[in-house]
Amino acid sequence: VKTFMVKVVDNAISAKNLGKEDPRIIVHSLKVGFAITLVSLFYYFEPKFEYQGFGVSAMWAVLTVVVVFEFTVGATLGRAINRAIATCLGASVAGGIHRLACFSGSKTIEPILLGFFLFLIVAIVTYLRFLPKLKARYDYGVLIFILTFSLVSVSGYHDKQVLEMAETRITTILIGCDIAFLVCVLICPVWAGQQLHDKISSNFEKIGSFLEVFGTDYLNTSSEEASEQKTSDLEGYKSVLNTKSAEEVLANFARWEPRHGKFRYRHPWGRYLEIGGIARECAFRIHALNDYLNYETQVEPEIRTKIQEPCKKVSTECGHVLKELALAMKTMTYPHTITIHIDNAKIAAENLKTLLHTNSSWEGINFSDVIPMATVASLLIEIVSSSVKMVESFDK
Amino acid sequence: VKTFMVKVVDNAISAKNLGKEDPRIIVHSLKVGFAITLVSLFYYFEPKFEYQGFGVSAMWAVLTVVVVFEFTVGATLGRAINRAIATCLGASVAGGIHRLACFSGSKTIEPILLGFFLFLIVAIVTYLRFLPKLKARYDYGVLIFILTFSLVSVSGYHDKQVLEMAETRITTILIGCDIAFLVCVLICPVWAGQQLHDKISSNFEKIGSFLEVFGTDYLNTSSEEASEQKTSDLEGYKSVLNTKSAEEVLANFARWEPRHGKFRYRHPWGRYLEIGGIARECAFRIHALNDYLNYETQVEPEIRTKIQEPCKKVSTECGHVLKELALAMKTMTYPHTITIHIDNAKIAAENLKTLLHTNSSWEGINFSDVIPMATVASLLIEIVSSSVKMVESFDK
Repeated sequence: VKTFMVKVVDNAISAKNLGKEDPRIIVHSLKVGFAITLVSLFYYFEPKFEYQGFGVSAMWAVLTVVVVFEFTVGATLGRAINRAIATCLGASVAGGIHRLACFSGSKTIEPILLGFFLFLIVAIVTYLRFLPKLKARYDYGVLIFILTFSLVSVSGYHDKQVLEMAETRITTILIGCDIAFLVCVLICPVWAGQQLHDKISSNFEKIGSFLEVFGTDYLNTSSEEASEQKTSDLEGYKSVLNTKSAEEVLANFARWEPRHGKFRYRHPWGRYLEIGGIARECAFRIHALNDYLNYETQVEPEIRTKIQEPCKKVSTECGHVLKELALAMKTMTYPHTITIHIDNAKIAAENLKTLLHTNSSWEGINFSDVIPMATVASLLIEIVSSSVKMVESFDK
Repeated sequence: VKTFMVKVVDNAISAKNLGKEDPRIIVHSLKVGFAITLVSLFYYFEPKFEYQGFGVSAMWAVLTVVVVFEFTVGATLGRAINRAIATCLGASVAGGIHRLACFSGSKTIEPILLGFFLFLIVAIVTYLRFLPKLKARYDYGVLIFILTFSLVSVSGYHDKQVLEMAETRITTILIGCDIAFLVCVLICPVWAGQQLHDKISSNFEKIGSFLEVFGTDYLNTSSEEASEQKTSDLEGYKSVLNTKSAEEVLANFARWEPRHGKFRYRHPWGRYLEIGGIARECAFRIHALNDYLNYETQVEPEIRTKIQEPCKKVSTECGHVLKELALAMKTMTYPHTITIHIDNAKIAAENLKTLLHTNSSWEGINFSDVIPMATVASLLIEIVSSSVKMVESFDK
């Protein structure tokens, strides 16, 4: 009992922190509650109107709101549009096939025909669901197509009011989609595009912090002085390594979104994925660089001082470039001072190269001692070229 | 019109290839078609029994099959169990609250109370959906809880047969879950656990191939001789870089699966994620190694021959270790010969280290020329230690 209580308390605490970290979650929960209560009012008042068309079917509207309402506007809109169009299509196809089956005229053949078409179309459409292009953006729509198609054609077995059934399903689902969409957009909307934008710019910032800390502190002083804050700056880049799928999902949602804030409709979201990919490449290199952190204490001070200055310069300047890029993305302004930092970084990288190419600097030094530092240096040079790539694709 | 036709043909071709590449997709599509036709038969014959309980509600069974049926057994079972339990819970809670509201006795207060509870409970449960622990395995269940709860409490506005409604919903959904699960398991099942297992072992194989090709061919001959087959071997590891989320999803599905084939229930799927993580670490290092492929032509043959032999040895032996690990996973046997390769790899890595530490070998050589090769060498040494880690965690 005691361990159970401890677990409950733990979960309660983590639930509380969730809301503290991201208050949008609280707002979202209230929005969902509001939208469902709203649509339930429609069900409540509906029989009081003259028009008593829906009956039990009005529940489809409730169902739609529950299923369609997502955290971001893009996701909600994507699901709503998918659901609306797929319901119309599914209902029409099922209606058409029902008409076709009726032509047979025979009471025995009709259900067999219906069953056959049901099997055939469901199997084909399920197969098409695996097409990567369809899966990324229309998976939910295809599912709803199968659903509506099955429901409407199955209901054709009993009553002849298939068309009526199809109609009410379409109307109620449209009402549900509308309510979900309106509540989602009008009350404190969360835009998937904005989230993607923030995510990419925070990735830049994480990589930039790593390089800055690496440059100013790590290469400068002994490792014992590194405080906890710095360790967290150094670890931050790790979350960039595995962001690919999250970014792709957000970009797919963002494509559904209308013009909002600083983003227009058809904002080039694909470009974000590209920049994100380059940032990830850079994070991979930093990950390799990170392996050499442990070597540091083994290197003789003599060598360190020689190679330290240019490495420090390269790392710090790259860090500045990335942080400015992050800031420029955040404020959506053109980063005018960035070219200075890029030039500095390039010059520093060239200096480092020249240093490595000058044999005389390295005579009489234990060869194995230089290797880790040299590796760090060449990785840093690679990082400069990644940074330049990032800036270039940002410019576009 | 012409571009549209071209697009249609393109899509048709890619749809055809999909089935060729993975025939399980075709089988899956037929299974879904079969399950839905089966459940529609239930709807067709149902009014012919004495027991005429369901009526329109029988459609919930069709809906359940469409929504629950997934590609792998684990995913289907997870959704089915989530849906079944969540429906029962949601219906009970809604029934309880309806009872509570009835106590008020007043016709005006009752719907207000119902609406208030609806808002409150939906908002709270939506908030809880964001808890990472719940989200990973029970997200669908929580959604269905909200759905059932809303539907049953909303229907309480009109008719007093709330309990009946809750009951038929539970029964029909249970029937749908059963049919979906049975068809999924009995006809050519696709196990998520098996997929995870295969994925991890193929990741090992990809990394192993890279190291083998890198060892035998690349470090040996000039880069121009590298044929296309080899390039694809060298590129294969890239897909390992971004597998984290896919592996996590599969592991979550696999946890639902009962004993099957070589896997028992509660197979340590978490361990797979660990091994997968180490393999990914190794892939990150290989990615850094890959950067140096382009340097190769610039290095003088004199240095290459010196450092080549041990590098080659390290790379090839690591490749052997990983490929044997992959084979051992595939056949689920203990890899007895692997220890020899590990020892060889370790010895080769030691030799390489000694070579790098011997100053005399490097005198009079242009310093900058050694750096890329030295970097390659030290990365390879790191890869040996990753490989050893993988073997260790495999042994557990």
